[in-house]
Amino acid sequence: MSQQHEHPRTPERSPSAHPGPGLFVVFEGGDGAGKSTQAARLAEALDAAGETVLRTREPGGTEIGEELRSLVLDHGHGTVDPRTEALIFAAARAAHVEQVILPALAAGHVVVCDRYIDSSVAYQGVGRGLGVEDVLNVNRWATQGLIPHLTVLLDVDAAAGRRRRTVRDAGGADRLEAESDDFHTRNRRAFLDLAAGDPARYLVLDAGQGVDELAGAVLERVRGLRGTGAGA
Amino acid sequence: MSQQHEHPRTPERSPSAHPGPGLFVVFEGGDGAGKSTQAARLAEALDAAGETVLRTREPGGTEIGEELRSLVLDHGHGTVDPRTEALIFAAARAAHVEQVILPALAAGHVVVCDRYIDSSVAYQGVGRGLGVEDVLNVNRWATQGLIPHLTVLLDVDAAAGRRRRTVRDAGGADRLEAESDDFHTRNRRAFLDLAAGDPARYLVLDAGQGVDELAGAVLERVRGLRGTGAGA
Repeated sequence: MSQQHEHPRTPERSPSAHPGPGLFVVFEGGDGAGKSTQAARLAEALDAAGETVLRTREPGGTEIGEELRSLVLDHGHGTVDPRTEALIFAAARAAHVEQVILPALAAGHVVVCDRYIDSSVAYQGVGRGLGVEDVLNVNRWATQGLIPHLTVLLDVDAAAGRRRRTVRDAGGADRLEAESDDFHTRNRRAFLDLAAGDPARYLVLDAGQGVDELAGAVLERVRGLRGTGAGA
Repeated sequence: MSQQHEHPRTPERSPSAHPGPGLFVVFEGGDGAGKSTQAARLAEALDAAGETVLRTREPGGTEIGEELRSLVLDHGHGTVDPRTEALIFAAARAAHVEQVILPALAAGHVVVCDRYIDSSVAYQGVGRGLGVEDVLNVNRWATQGLIPHLTVLLDVDAAAGRRRRTVRDAGGADRLEAESDDFHTRNRRAFLDLAAGDPARYLVLDAGQGVDELAGAVLERVRGLRGTGAGA
């Protein structure tokens, strides 16, 4: 299952080169965009259509991944600089792909995952200033070049993001709100840029639509990819 | 201190582009080549000459590095695949460089370190089959492109390695001895190839020489780089 690369850069695998007959679907987008809800809806619909579905998110239940995540989230060990943090997340992702995702794809299952490489690019590459291409390259290597068949980007525009934040923490300081707006806008731009770079592989949806409407659009696209009556 | 790169590949910093007026010396070579002994001898000589010397080795006393190392060494958490392991070591190295080595170099100190990127290339790139260029690239990014002013490779030839192993575990099986020989030879070749790729930055020494002879050769080279009477 694990492939070794002897060349300098890990090439992306085209979806058709993915191991096994499975389907790999990822949901991306900012906090509160509705990724978990939509991932659950998709998984339910596919399950009802007789598919075997693996619902997962990083660190995906690998023991080493859980320990790595707790290292970063635990505040007991001093600061973790952005580059170290990015490598720790990449290590957790490597284990998730090797131990969980690739075996499921090889078995022909549908893998539905909350967040993948794009989130690292947005939060670490752009948000932490490590650079888009560098974070992409490290993560392509970590994941053996495995890219999703479909990435659903639930796009939240700045105004909607501001409303959500206002509802969540009423009375926040103006300066923080402004910084938050800027952070949100840069993150959103990072996700949209990734989608624009490979439009055939992305489904970009306005997250402000209704839950049912979104679920229908996602299922239609997945049905087309799967080439079956899944969810009919 | 931390530099951000926006381009796809992290370029090596030439030694002259290193931050600060410090000197970064690394000892590499197989197990039992005498790295610790020679690193200690060099540190003593430089210290006696009035230099401020930082003796270090990975994970270099960073809290996150220690925890990462214990994750890999601890057998309580199932298997760790080679790619995940390589990324964990790279994360520990990133913290070591950012928190320990770069500040010491900026302060003008001499940093004397047991093992650095070359060991990962030999053990993970070659030994575990992950590929030399890929492991180099990940580690160049992890270390912000920081390369040593001087890498001392203590080279142990296959015959000497076999004698050492024979002394250590008398009566070992022939098949294991043969495998071990092959492993040793491939590792050694990896170190020598790296040295051949940048001869001006390496000092390759036959580890079979006497301790004093080796220490003298190392000190002479460092003295030339430091441009002072260090160790005179």
